Amino acid sequence: MSLIVQKYGGTSVGDVERIQGVARRILGYRKAGHDVAVVVSAMSGETNRLVSMGETISDGQADPREMDVLTASGEQVTIALLSLALKAQGQRAKSYLADQIGIHTDSAHGRARIRHIDTDKLRSDLEMGTVPVVAGFQGVNDIGEITTLGRGGSDTSAVALAAALNADECEICTDVDGVYTADPRVVEAARRLSVVTFEEMLELASLGSKVLHPRSVEYAGRYGVPLRVVSTFEEGEGTLITIESEDMEQPLVSGIAHARDEAKITVSGVPDIPGIASKILGPVGRANVEVDMIVQNTGADGLTDFTFTVTRGDYDRTIRLLRDVATEISAREISGDNEIAKVSIVGVGMRSHAGVATRMFDCLASENINIQMISTSEIKISVVVAEKYLELAVRALHSEFDLDEE
Amino acid sequence: MSLIVQKYGGTSVGDVERIQGVARRILGYRKAGHDVAVVVSAMSGETNRLVSMGETISDGQADPREMDVLTASGEQVTIALLSLALKAQGQRAKSYLADQIGIHTDSAHGRARIRHIDTDKLRSDLEMGTVPVVAGFQGVNDIGEITTLGRGGSDTSAVALAAALNADECEICTDVDGVYTADPRVVEAARRLSVVTFEEMLELASLGSKVLHPRSVEYAGRYGVPLRVVSTFEEGEGTLITIESEDMEQPLVSGIAHARDEAKITVSGVPDIPGIASKILGPVGRANVEVDMIVQNTGADGLTDFTFTVTRGDYDRTIRLLRDVATEISAREISGDNEIAKVSIVGVGMRSHAGVATRMFDCLASENINIQMISTSEIKISVVVAEKYLELAVRALHSEFDLDEE
Repeated sequence: MSLIVQKYGGTSVGDVERIQGVARRILGYRKAGHDVAVVVSAMSGETNRLVSMGETISDGQADPREMDVLTASGEQVTIALLSLALKAQGQRAKSYLADQIGIHTDSAHGRARIRHIDTDKLRSDLEMGTVPVVAGFQGVNDIGEITTLGRGGSDTSAVALAAALNADECEICTDVDGVYTADPRVVEAARRLSVVTFEEMLELASLGSKVLHPRSVEYAGRYGVPLRVVSTFEEGEGTLITIESEDMEQPLVSGIAHARDEAKITVSGVPDIPGIASKILGPVGRANVEVDMIVQNTGADGLTDFTFTVTRGDYDRTIRLLRDVATEISAREISGDNEIAKVSIVGVGMRSHAGVATRMFDCLASENINIQMISTSEIKISVVVAEKYLELAVRALHSEFDLDEE
Repeated sequence: MSLIVQKYGGTSVGDVERIQGVARRILGYRKAGHDVAVVVSAMSGETNRLVSMGETISDGQADPREMDVLTASGEQVTIALLSLALKAQGQRAKSYLADQIGIHTDSAHGRARIRHIDTDKLRSDLEMGTVPVVAGFQGVNDIGEITTLGRGGSDTSAVALAAALNADECEICTDVDGVYTADPRVVEAARRLSVVTFEEMLELASLGSKVLHPRSVEYAGRYGVPLRVVSTFEEGEGTLITIESEDMEQPLVSGIAHARDEAKITVSGVPDIPGIASKILGPVGRANVEVDMIVQNTGADGLTDFTFTVTRGDYDRTIRLLRDVATEISAREISGDNEIAKVSIVGVGMRSHAGVATRMFDCLASENINIQMISTSEIKISVVVAEKYLELAVRALHSEFDLDEE
């Protein structure tokens, strides 16, 4: 008998029939003798609908506190519906909002971080054979306000709950049956990986592989929560996300990730003096804009060009934000491009093999794809290319690194 | 400068444009120097949508605790949207869920009663010039669970809030511009009343005049909260609901109310012994079914027929409930009719005038409308008739008691 935390995403709870299906799936685990705690997202499309209403009504200058109150209502609906479905199938169940259970976060509305989860109520439910159904994505701050964890935050809620309960496994139940070597919608020959390391998964997730939210993977790695991505709709083992071990067979490249909704911003003609990076990125960070890749080129004239990428949704806001900064630091120009994409190769095997980068760049060059930015880490190499080349780049690299299905 | 509590119903906050209109209306009051606290309902149709999903998913046996979690999400959406709209128009505002503000209720899920409202946060907001936007319809019980007050509960929330804040007036902002002598959709000649007494309003509301929830009127009367029904969409004085005073001119009949969604149930052939009424109605009350009219006829054979009315939505459940009871008390039969309607004449003037009942019955007889049940109180007379006669009965009585617009 194990304790399993299961998270069901928006597609899995997209309508009444699917929620009844999820209830049956949970019942299967209960009948097999497992204890189950559940975390759910809002019904698919619901969060977008709420965000869109909120933004329309506030002319794009939406107050973050109120946006959290608004969007958190989506999960409230699904915890109630799933609890009702479980009860209708004879299974004891109880819904919990974040503040009812005590999912304590900081006060960064829209991007809150979980600090602590109270487990008393959950443990007593589990002992009674009750399935607690917890609202993902949301938390409560010190003064009792609703916070949300940002997009994909339900994954983080589930992993944090699994860590707090010391669960045997955290299952992310979704509409795909595991983690693939690339997005199967882009690469037909993509294969499901039966095992992937936390590190690889982290890179695959943060680089746009849509299966898991990066923060949840990071969290799972830190607290050693075994994480499994499985399909809600089909039987199967899915992909287990493990801690790297010595004797693991390590492929050179495990997968090709991509991120489509990227934008790059260049502040050019900046005096090349210490502290200039923080003068530029300070205000951006304080505005809660997440910066991804950063590149700085020093020119011969004592001036430098400073380029970084943000998600496309933050593009206009960041450009506006930088106007004042540019004047202050006497920059020559702010330019940008929001039709770019990021493509990355990821693999723990890269650590012990040289020449992977060259092979990647050669492959792209042979397809006439120009590389605009490069960023590397121990187990990944990312490049920024024009968005129109995205599919071609991913497919070429998938084949180059022998990932195509036989 | 006054303190006004305003309640906006589902139609008033039915879409983004209407919510922006409500924000402008509130701004008008602020500019005129008033303090305003707001209570809102869910967007029109939303509560029905949620209830229908909840009932579908639980095969009609919905758990009341979870139904409250589900339906309370509707008001969460509107408090956030209205706060966002107010802020976008430059007005400080803050949304509050029932548990955030402290709207404490008992634990009768779906029909909870307000026990106490904390006003600290609200008062400090009002002092700062902030408009607090409070979720109607919902409350929180002693163990932190969400409760709801039942249909129309937002009116009660508003009145309770006005009482707790000792507000100068509670405005019920709705899609009609006041209380009418009858439903204008049924009686073309119906007139708006500029003043109506709490008692009349209570009878008009509980008898199906859809403007206000009866519990809110009762509450307003008990705590002396001046209540005004006004239109959200048009300028106007609306109808003031007052405490009866000696020198008021009292019309014989102030209005004709009707209730369409009624059903009657008869338990026949019951032994005519003490305690039989409570044996029948006890289980019904414990199942939270509200019983309205009750009539008992004693026959010559020591047996009696016991008839009562419930809302149509409770009809099937009540019939099921009574099967066991009927066996226990050796009743001959349970029968019922869910195609009935209730029509009532209401007026404080009835107190001092005899012959009103006769005039009512004569009027209905002259239209060939059969009266199935009769119930009277100091200021109203109600009759149950077949639903198909409803409109005819209301129009005939409206004319009979000189209420038609000249």
